[in-house]
Amino acid sequence: MRATLMYSAGDVRVVDVPEPTIQEPTDAIIRVTYACVCGSDLHPYHDLEDTPEGRHMGHEAIGVIEQIGPDVTTLDVGDTVIVPFAWSDGTCAFCRDGITTSCVHGGFFDGAPSATQAEKLRIPYADGTAVAIPAGTDEALMPSLLTLSDVYLTGYHAAIRGGVEAGKAVAVIGDGAVGLSAVLAAKQLGAEIIILMGRHTARTDLGREFGATHVIAERGEEGIAKVLELTGGEGAHVVLEAVGHMPAYEQAYGIVRPGGVISRVGVPQYEDAAVGFASLFGKNATLTGGPATVRAYLEAAIPQVIDGTIEPGKVFDRELPLDEIAEAYRLMDAREALKVLIRL
Amino acid sequence: MRATLMYSAGDVRVVDVPEPTIQEPTDAIIRVTYACVCGSDLHPYHDLEDTPEGRHMGHEAIGVIEQIGPDVTTLDVGDTVIVPFAWSDGTCAFCRDGITTSCVHGGFFDGAPSATQAEKLRIPYADGTAVAIPAGTDEALMPSLLTLSDVYLTGYHAAIRGGVEAGKAVAVIGDGAVGLSAVLAAKQLGAEIIILMGRHTARTDLGREFGATHVIAERGEEGIAKVLELTGGEGAHVVLEAVGHMPAYEQAYGIVRPGGVISRVGVPQYEDAAVGFASLFGKNATLTGGPATVRAYLEAAIPQVIDGTIEPGKVFDRELPLDEIAEAYRLMDAREALKVLIRL
Repeated sequence: MRATLMYSAGDVRVVDVPEPTIQEPTDAIIRVTYACVCGSDLHPYHDLEDTPEGRHMGHEAIGVIEQIGPDVTTLDVGDTVIVPFAWSDGTCAFCRDGITTSCVHGGFFDGAPSATQAEKLRIPYADGTAVAIPAGTDEALMPSLLTLSDVYLTGYHAAIRGGVEAGKAVAVIGDGAVGLSAVLAAKQLGAEIIILMGRHTARTDLGREFGATHVIAERGEEGIAKVLELTGGEGAHVVLEAVGHMPAYEQAYGIVRPGGVISRVGVPQYEDAAVGFASLFGKNATLTGGPATVRAYLEAAIPQVIDGTIEPGKVFDRELPLDEIAEAYRLMDAREALKVLIRL
Repeated sequence: MRATLMYSAGDVRVVDVPEPTIQEPTDAIIRVTYACVCGSDLHPYHDLEDTPEGRHMGHEAIGVIEQIGPDVTTLDVGDTVIVPFAWSDGTCAFCRDGITTSCVHGGFFDGAPSATQAEKLRIPYADGTAVAIPAGTDEALMPSLLTLSDVYLTGYHAAIRGGVEAGKAVAVIGDGAVGLSAVLAAKQLGAEIIILMGRHTARTDLGREFGATHVIAERGEEGIAKVLELTGGEGAHVVLEAVGHMPAYEQAYGIVRPGGVISRVGVPQYEDAAVGFASLFGKNATLTGGPATVRAYLEAAIPQVIDGTIEPGKVFDRELPLDEIAEAYRLMDAREALKVLIRL
């Protein structure tokens, strides 16, 4: 089958590899029908060391089940399923808590031996991991359903962990697909003020469509001053940080209101950061977030897409076939595309 | 009047200074009847630079009102009041949020021109700051009521911000007076398992009396392993960090359960710390806490002391007159006393 492998920074190729097979009785194999490229795929695209054997890429997928292991009970051959970016057994203590990304048997498709930017995918712990889309669902909804693999529910996770609720002033740092998803999620949760911090007009325009009430293009001290001005000097109750770089973190603690929450979903490209009296502690600010527990939100989110409540698939502004996925990476890296859908 | 001033590390003296006077119409002046020494007073005791004019010490007090400014409406001359370690106007947006330590007109008694280890104290924004104890309250309850100035409600703040509730496994790092108060608060909030990490038996014994179900003397990796063992490998839902030094922080993220909360009330003696994928982010751990919003909890806590629900004053294991307060600092610094009550 055809699969996307990365061999070094910038070197993405679609090559022939063996098809995945059932390894464990809890596995399923799907024929991938939709995949996409994630902002986080650009991290190895920038800095992957030489990897002669290639790194299997992709962690977002919709597909049709072709085979199930003997212990799979909730899914059938022929079902169309959404696959979260992490697999999880659905039964361990952390899964029962809803922290599915910490599953004791869990793992991430990104870089695993079978990843999603490929014709077929092996899903470990299929019952715990994948969720079926109702038969007969309109094909036009698939891009939005695909965002439930990761990007929309990552924005939603930021908003949930941040405690967004009616009446709150929310600031979203980052106008990438996750930041825009966070805007949409904040709107769904009833935020009164949604300030989107970003400076790419095409993107911030979609942010306004998703519910942003204000857009601030300035960064750093200027950006902080603008948010404070907009909030009567008080700051944002909740800051959704969808970037992962240090300047975004510094901006976050600069604009969070005393007693407020910074919720991060941009994978931190740093380990240490300011958390002392001058940044978080002095104003009783809370820092939360982490890998989105997509699986815990999936059942509730699918009907919202199907009934038209949300249309998160608008983050896809380009579409390419699998064989042209290297161009998808290039477009996203050059910011010529926000997010590229791969239709197989 | 007599007041406690510190002139350099280790140099604490009780000297004659002018009495405080009403400066603003919202001020009150009290005759201090109870004060004490706080663990945080030991920070300048260790590292205060030469301060020829002296630094006024103390931020915990009970006293009797001698004078009120013309705008004070809720307190009267003769009232016995509890004074939180920070003053606050009670009316700004942050006070209304309950984040009284971020009051726009607020400040900390510690190091202010009128501090509490003295015969008299000026209370700014007296209506917003001080709360009267019911007339006729048993004098024997005063030590416990004094802990509502800071130490008990600082432990309580840790537990509240950490989301301690029935059924949770809570770990408390630090067996100082704040740590022990955090144990007592966690017990009040219904925690099922309360693991106290500390190694001074006299203190951990009081911790057990306050509600600790387990005591772990080990620190670092060994301490982390013990907590994981006690919690079936899962970690603590809530970690209350009552120390403020980096090893305690590192211990905290080592023992927190995925999706759990680290709540800090030990004033961080560091600014930067680990918050990336390997520490907080990867397991969706939340970091919260800050200066205790004592004032927001006072009205509810006073009746709990008066009706005997809690007896937080047990943290006082020594008592000295004001003129011997230097000895109180020495005793606490040498860990010969847990916390020293100063009765005036």
